[in-house]
Amino acid sequence: MRKPPAFSNVPHGTVTTVPGFRAAGVAAGIKPDGKKDVGLLVSDTVATVAAVFTTNRVKAAPVLISRQHARHGSGRAVIVNSGNANACTGQDGLVHARAMTEAVARRIGCPAEQVFVCSTGRIGVKLPIVKVQAGIKQLLGALQPNGGHALAEAMMTSDTVPKEIAVAIRHRGHTVHIGGVAKGAGMIHPHMATMLCLLTTDAAMSRAPLQRALERAVDQSFNRISVDNDMSTNDTVLLLANGMAGPLPVPLFQEALHHVCRELADMIVRDGEGCTKFVTIELRGAASARDADRAARAVANSMLVKASWCGGDPNWGRIMDALGYSGARFDPNRVEIWYNDLPAARRGIATRTPVEALRQVLARPSFCVRIHLHAGPAQVTRVTTDLTERYVTFNKGE
Amino acid sequence: MRKPPAFSNVPHGTVTTVPGFRAAGVAAGIKPDGKKDVGLLVSDTVATVAAVFTTNRVKAAPVLISRQHARHGSGRAVIVNSGNANACTGQDGLVHARAMTEAVARRIGCPAEQVFVCSTGRIGVKLPIVKVQAGIKQLLGALQPNGGHALAEAMMTSDTVPKEIAVAIRHRGHTVHIGGVAKGAGMIHPHMATMLCLLTTDAAMSRAPLQRALERAVDQSFNRISVDNDMSTNDTVLLLANGMAGPLPVPLFQEALHHVCRELADMIVRDGEGCTKFVTIELRGAASARDADRAARAVANSMLVKASWCGGDPNWGRIMDALGYSGARFDPNRVEIWYNDLPAARRGIATRTPVEALRQVLARPSFCVRIHLHAGPAQVTRVTTDLTERYVTFNKGE
Repeated sequence: MRKPPAFSNVPHGTVTTVPGFRAAGVAAGIKPDGKKDVGLLVSDTVATVAAVFTTNRVKAAPVLISRQHARHGSGRAVIVNSGNANACTGQDGLVHARAMTEAVARRIGCPAEQVFVCSTGRIGVKLPIVKVQAGIKQLLGALQPNGGHALAEAMMTSDTVPKEIAVAIRHRGHTVHIGGVAKGAGMIHPHMATMLCLLTTDAAMSRAPLQRALERAVDQSFNRISVDNDMSTNDTVLLLANGMAGPLPVPLFQEALHHVCRELADMIVRDGEGCTKFVTIELRGAASARDADRAARAVANSMLVKASWCGGDPNWGRIMDALGYSGARFDPNRVEIWYNDLPAARRGIATRTPVEALRQVLARPSFCVRIHLHAGPAQVTRVTTDLTERYVTFNKGE
Repeated sequence: MRKPPAFSNVPHGTVTTVPGFRAAGVAAGIKPDGKKDVGLLVSDTVATVAAVFTTNRVKAAPVLISRQHARHGSGRAVIVNSGNANACTGQDGLVHARAMTEAVARRIGCPAEQVFVCSTGRIGVKLPIVKVQAGIKQLLGALQPNGGHALAEAMMTSDTVPKEIAVAIRHRGHTVHIGGVAKGAGMIHPHMATMLCLLTTDAAMSRAPLQRALERAVDQSFNRISVDNDMSTNDTVLLLANGMAGPLPVPLFQEALHHVCRELADMIVRDGEGCTKFVTIELRGAASARDADRAARAVANSMLVKASWCGGDPNWGRIMDALGYSGARFDPNRVEIWYNDLPAARRGIATRTPVEALRQVLARPSFCVRIHLHAGPAQVTRVTTDLTERYVTFNKGE
């Protein structure tokens, strides 16, 4: 008999489901439509901090500042704005990002190094810092022990729904929590600490294992998803652990953290810009982990493959084509491609599965593409979306 | 004073503008809409043959057969079909591709090794070989000294216009020709001998310099263009030289061949599936040729960048983002981005150029994105298109 999981989702859970954290989100006028665009997360005590940032060579000012602060390994607060990425904004951008951390630090009474900053929105436009500063003042007055939802809303850009979760982990009679909020939608690509994701926990963890746990969880979640080809300049994942609930065995913490990150990553994919399909690519039989990654990525990023998913067309030939140019080593005459449990191609050629049956799988909002290269033992799973006219319409202009 | 060019375009030129070549195109019933779908090019004498094929690991049967035949270095004919790629069709596919060359060889009286075969269309569907064989019979009767245009039509898949050109080269009182037909539209990606391209010349060239000249021309033309990310399983460029006009200095031949290939490559981009913009990316200042290639390719293939071009949005931040994840080495604080002659970003941040002026450049059907990385001496030019809703609509289904 399988052991029941040691943790469960908390209904309507969010970052502030975790005791000792407060949050707020308000409208500071950065977004022209008057929606919430600045958010604040505050830990009542000094928390241990783990962080993962974008690997894009072009890093936004808030990433550069938060990365510096993360070296200290402890934190009290995260200030977030949406509607402007504060990226490609030069010296001004750095001054503004630093000013945001200083304004929060002054008001909650901590060193600026204990405040992290995240921005998301258009690149290359100067941050309206006066509005942001006024927003920060408002946020301090609006902080609530149940303010996580407002914070999640304030992080949204092209997201259509806020992305939040919390789990309660039961261990030896006490309960430990992990909460998370994320934003995604566009510029989502693997090999990145996705978009913005703030995680909280009351587990007591020292910094090195906390950082290792975060890196593993990010690798198994946000680095497995892809909406378009594009990696953001601003991607940031921050995890604040305030220790209030005492220690947890690391494997249990890791398992729960994986779950939280995977759920948030899936929410990001499901809310991908304009997407209508949630597609899981299970790639097996690659000669190496690198080949598995290349092959799955080529399929997940092919505009032709993604467009065929949009139309529900079981055009496995385009998948073969993408595998072929991926750089992965394999014999085309051994490849198998399945849609859910139906084989579409075997030994590199069409099976007798009726096209109509394959079409029925692709008509579902969520399906799995299983690929076996028969070239080795490596495997990988990726989650992605289709490419739709709405994606293009959405990204054509401001 | 600049020397006048030694060659000029022939009005309505095509492969059969070159003396000694005949061609035909007819409807064999492969395409359901009754359009021309088989084409034949025949050289009256045995021609020297140079060839470049797809680097995709998944190679269509006609590519495998033509590559074998190309080792012999001489040819009499090329048989082409559209509407079916004969790719991922296994042993049957090879039998069919070979049968196509044999049917032509038998009828024109030459070894099968002197006949080349190209297919284009949907992948993974068995070739209707009986229809193709009947078509070949028709083609033999339809061969004309001005049949190049019919051949160009028979090669079309999602192309909206046939792509043809011929140049006349004047040298020491005699005239030498190069003609070409190509098909493109989708699955166009650099690092490939693009889609299908058949080239003819009456220059007398031995095989090694002919192959070198072709490889150089392909590298400077078809390998510089990109419509989507996808490399085809069927890409083939064939050049037949019948020698009837005598020898030419290699540099002069090379220059004219470059011109022919560049013109055909540009025609392919202008006819890219659903595209509304013809965009030239001039990337300079890269640390190495590899970096230049990576950076320009990341920009040319970014769905977000391409969608912003579609909307005429001068969103240079997305270009910075793509450069940043390209893998090319550079300092983001030194990057310059121009639209035609207007600077949009300098030292990695926005210039004072009014957005309205930038918008006017992007409103044009054709414009240039100039990027300077200030990281070294390497440079590259790429030609690409925007990403439109029509591209997605077109590629959603059959």
